[in-house]
Amino acid sequence: MTDLFNPVAPLGSSTDAQLYTSIQHFYARHMQAVDDGDARTWALGFTEDGVFDSNVLPAPVSGRETIESATRAAEEARSSTGVTRRHVMTMLAVEPEDEAATVVRTRSYVAVFSTLPGQPTGIYCMTSCQDVLVRGTDGGWRIRSRHVLRDDLPPRD
Amino acid sequence: MTDLFNPVAPLGSSTDAQLYTSIQHFYARHMQAVDDGDARTWALGFTEDGVFDSNVLPAPVSGRETIESATRAAEEARSSTGVTRRHVMTMLAVEPEDEAATVVRTRSYVAVFSTLPGQPTGIYCMTSCQDVLVRGTDGGWRIRSRHVLRDDLPPRD
Amino acid sequence: MTDLFNPVAPLGSSTDAQLYTSIQHFYARHMQAVDDGDARTWALGFTEDGVFDSNVLPAPVSGRETIESATRAAEEARSSTGVTRRHVMTMLAVEPEDEAATVVRTRSYVAVFSTLPGQPTGIYCMTSCQDVLVRGTDGGWRIRSRHVLRDDLPPRD
Repeated sequence: MTDLFNPVAPLGSSTDAQLYTSIQHFYARHMQAVDDGDARTWALGFTEDGVFDSNVLPAPVSGRETIESATRAAEEARSSTGVTRRHVMTMLAVEPEDEAATVVRTRSYVAVFSTLPGQPTGIYCMTSCQDVLVRGTDGGWRIRSRHVLRDDLPPRD
Repeated sequence: MTDLFNPVAPLGSSTDAQLYTSIQHFYARHMQAVDDGDARTWALGFTEDGVFDSNVLPAPVSGRETIESATRAAEEARSSTGVTRRHVMTMLAVEPEDEAATVVRTRSYVAVFSTLPGQPTGIYCMTSCQDVLVRGTDGGWRIRSRHVLRDDLPPRD
Repeated sequence: MTDLFNPVAPLGSSTDAQLYTSIQHFYARHMQAVDDGDARTWALGFTEDGVFDSNVLPAPVSGRETIESATRAAEEARSSTGVTRRHVMTMLAVEPEDEAATVVRTRSYVAVFSTLPGQPTGIYCMTSCQDVLVRGTDGGWRIRSRHVLRDDLPPRD
């Protein structure tokens, strides 16, 4: 996994409120989509050539269609167990790559909480997440690449 | 529980920074109020005819005064045990109902953390939360209706 | 610990989006810095005469240099155990002290998650956090004073 921005951007750098909140909002809806089992909406949050990588995977998953079918398979496995998952992103840092902020690198934490009916909620995993987002002509954000690092597992490389 | 916006709003839809942050800020103070045991401030975050519903309740609680007295009773039970609760809202999605955004539907996750003196912090419950907010003439947000769904309990209906 | 703003600011008060997001962003990068083991960047998030206090400490830690060396020592202890820590700030409330918002009091929750290789993630502690932030001439935020209250430990006083 390439560390996209480390050290973190200078703490004094300015923040554009519109940019920051639109990305927060994108992620909120994106995470709710996958937790709702809506693999199609989740996949539409990636570019057509989007890449999803994680140290839990043997290799990156490439392409929106492949991401959708992999998510659908995971969703079928999940729903058969009755577990509810909640993806919670926090500590979002954003760094535009260009003046117009059409390409933005983000770094955040994503915790996944897990609940079985009648059981107390537990923490499934804690991760850090590094994305490259691109802004479409419709104004919407899409993920060109996502690198997830689960804290409990070693890096793949 | 009615699912207020499922599927989630199109991921490309625009976000008004002022709207989004004012709602984030409202919730931050609202959650801190209840965790501080301040039932009055919590209740003032509802409209006078506000409704609070949850699948942990036998029936919805209606009206600000009733919400306040129910919260005060819960607070007395809590404080007698010495437990500290923290309501943590994340993944906030907002959807204005009208052009001027005086009525806004929101959907979020609310986790409740719980700590007894000298004991490790645990997760009391994970919930999803769907609110209808209205903006008063003073610019402040108030909850007209709240529907909370605890992940560990079945829907009431 | 002095309670900096209790009761919380009136729920109807306005929120400046630029102010709110710039502080959210500051904290996201600040927390990621300490979790990355970058004591220098973390310390630069305090003023030169900044004070860090917590009910886990015997006394406040004063001065950026002292904060940096204390953080470096804690980081060395942490890295020798192989644990990953994640500081997650939520429920951020802000209250400017002056019209120009060059001094801002904040109140939030900070949960610390902890993961050992191959082990499930746990909650290290839940805290409430009260800061006084000052805005430098470079536009960057720095912490003049921080008061952390761990929920599992009694107040020091």
